[in-house]
Amino acid sequence: MPTVAVIGDGQLARMMQTAAIELGQSVRLLAGSPDASAAQVTGDVVEGDYRRMADLRRAIAGADAVTFDHEHVPNDFLRELLAEKVVVEPRPEALIFAQDKLAQRTKLAELGLPVPRFAGIESAADAARFFDRVEGRVCLKATRGGYDGHGVWFPADKAELADLVERLLAEQVPLMAEEKVAFERELSALVARRRSGEIRAWPVVESVQKDGVCSEAIAPAPGLATEAAEKATQLAQTIASELGVTGVLAVELFEFIGAAGTPEVVVNELAMRPHNTGHWTQDGSVTSQFEQHLRAVLDLPLGDTTPRAPVTVMANTLGGEVEPEMPEVERMAEVWRRFPQAKIHLYGKSYRPGRKLGHVNVSGEDAEEARRIARLAAGFLVTARWEDA
Amino acid sequence: MPTVAVIGDGQLARMMQTAAIELGQSVRLLAGSPDASAAQVTGDVVEGDYRRMADLRRAIAGADAVTFDHEHVPNDFLRELLAEKVVVEPRPEALIFAQDKLAQRTKLAELGLPVPRFAGIESAADAARFFDRVEGRVCLKATRGGYDGHGVWFPADKAELADLVERLLAEQVPLMAEEKVAFERELSALVARRRSGEIRAWPVVESVQKDGVCSEAIAPAPGLATEAAEKATQLAQTIASELGVTGVLAVELFEFIGAAGTPEVVVNELAMRPHNTGHWTQDGSVTSQFEQHLRAVLDLPLGDTTPRAPVTVMANTLGGEVEPEMPEVERMAEVWRRFPQAKIHLYGKSYRPGRKLGHVNVSGEDAEEARRIARLAAGFLVTARWEDA
Repeated sequence: MPTVAVIGDGQLARMMQTAAIELGQSVRLLAGSPDASAAQVTGDVVEGDYRRMADLRRAIAGADAVTFDHEHVPNDFLRELLAEKVVVEPRPEALIFAQDKLAQRTKLAELGLPVPRFAGIESAADAARFFDRVEGRVCLKATRGGYDGHGVWFPADKAELADLVERLLAEQVPLMAEEKVAFERELSALVARRRSGEIRAWPVVESVQKDGVCSEAIAPAPGLATEAAEKATQLAQTIASELGVTGVLAVELFEFIGAAGTPEVVVNELAMRPHNTGHWTQDGSVTSQFEQHLRAVLDLPLGDTTPRAPVTVMANTLGGEVEPEMPEVERMAEVWRRFPQAKIHLYGKSYRPGRKLGHVNVSGEDAEEARRIARLAAGFLVTARWEDA
Repeated sequence: MPTVAVIGDGQLARMMQTAAIELGQSVRLLAGSPDASAAQVTGDVVEGDYRRMADLRRAIAGADAVTFDHEHVPNDFLRELLAEKVVVEPRPEALIFAQDKLAQRTKLAELGLPVPRFAGIESAADAARFFDRVEGRVCLKATRGGYDGHGVWFPADKAELADLVERLLAEQVPLMAEEKVAFERELSALVARRRSGEIRAWPVVESVQKDGVCSEAIAPAPGLATEAAEKATQLAQTIASELGVTGVLAVELFEFIGAAGTPEVVVNELAMRPHNTGHWTQDGSVTSQFEQHLRAVLDLPLGDTTPRAPVTVMANTLGGEVEPEMPEVERMAEVWRRFPQAKIHLYGKSYRPGRKLGHVNVSGEDAEEARRIARLAAGFLVTARWEDA
């Protein structure tokens, strides 16, 4: 099995490592610190900074393919490596559409795919014009560097928008604006594609956000009509093919009631790597997104994505205000005592408010029951309290 | 999550490591070499020899519990460690029944549990008497150190038995004899028990042996009547409780047609650790045997053992005479191209005839179809040929 170098040291890289081990291999990491989530469990670690070309070169030396646990590696560096015949997957010309939101919106619109109305913002005047165009339903975004609700603003009125734009442009933040979508819920269509063209999709999931951070994913999305699910999957497959994505692609969608009174979707975000809304696949699908990503970036045949249960729910364990006094292992024991079916995945991270520390997967027959258990379990792990007590 | 020190560096320790990582931890290893299967993927490795007390002490320093990937650690050393309050799981007073076949037969017989007729053999005269008692249906065993068909002999007649006994006793091999069972098939009842008494069982599986080595496990055992399955599970639970086993216990059984014309079982072997007949649980059960073993030795509540599919079949990939010219990754690709549902697990071992290099799990609705796929896939991985071509 060839070696995959992963740029990044977070939980996504960590879970790629467990998938790699079962396939008889280990990933190579470029990690910021030996204590980072993935570095803790990987022998083959190069310490360095992904914003330095020399460090990237050290990390990929001898690896058969290079991939990522985040979108922040400078695209220029990747183009340079690609020109030198390094196998970078996804390639920089695809990855740019996950790195630059304005480039992404422009590309998807060109392809005739559903996106909210948008505009690049280079002045307060641009912003004012866009505000009028969308009747004030405006969302301002940094085109680069945002994640988990960072880099997104919802100004209350035109004056606040103007102030925000002036301030951010002065700070050299590249900006775009888009129409705020009055959505009913968020969906995520997850697919994997490999260079030779094969694509496989997992069922479309519903994702629930709390303060801009994913808190739950329900697979499959409850009540999503077959036709709507197929359409969302088709959309993700089209994006994967048209953009030349390799590896896992997550297409985050807003579902809203369209002019015809029926549910429609627009694309919210793209991620070209394993994604939080795909963690359920570890326990709920024949092939997990982590194994699939490794196979895809090595251009190996993709695995079966059939669900292993009628429904699987993932709930994130997000750090609360203060870590409970009860030791973590006792919290795990309490959760398992009450819910022997709860699959706990932890990332080896220290407790910090709002931090993604792990997740819990629960499979079952009934979405509401699985959600109840996953939420209670994830909640107890970070608070040492049962929400229903 | 507390740290578990695993004595041994084979594939069982390796698969405990992937389970530990997902639980937010890493195992500590006592490994014979840094290249060994588990050592390749573990950061926290102590190199040493499990037959040396000083090495054992180095490996367990600071760990919260100690467990094993094989049965070969001297029982006396473990008693000494236990006396010093080291958490050794399973404890030496239980483990002795997996280490010493005569002690095991004696104990199970005392408990009134079904075992073949047996006798300790200290002379050729002992052996001759036993030969007559079982009308020549005799199997000679080393009481200690055997595995995968090693340490078991089937003499064709009384003279061969006498020669064998003389030779082995001269070599200081401790011996026992037992009645050769004319069995229909082999079953395996897998349970896990923790110190505070909780026990959970997986479905009873059928195991298929080739030249004394497990080649397949079919979960659940096809055609096994509910009552018979419950009886076998009850037997394993009784053994776990009565012997004070902690961690995973595999009870290998012979199924034969009894005097009443109905199927009955006798105990063949015991293993007190994750077992080859439980590898299917990685993909086929809510909780894998590797996660369950870690939880059990830490006395944490045990996980749900419900199957994730109607049937899951595991086939071992056993090294053939010569390694094929086709590179391993191409063999994997071929298997995945034909069978996207095949779950390949490899141990990072070099090719050697008869060596356990990995296994393939296949879930499905139909046992024969899942067997066909698992066998073809495992076969191709080691021969680069389709058995059905």
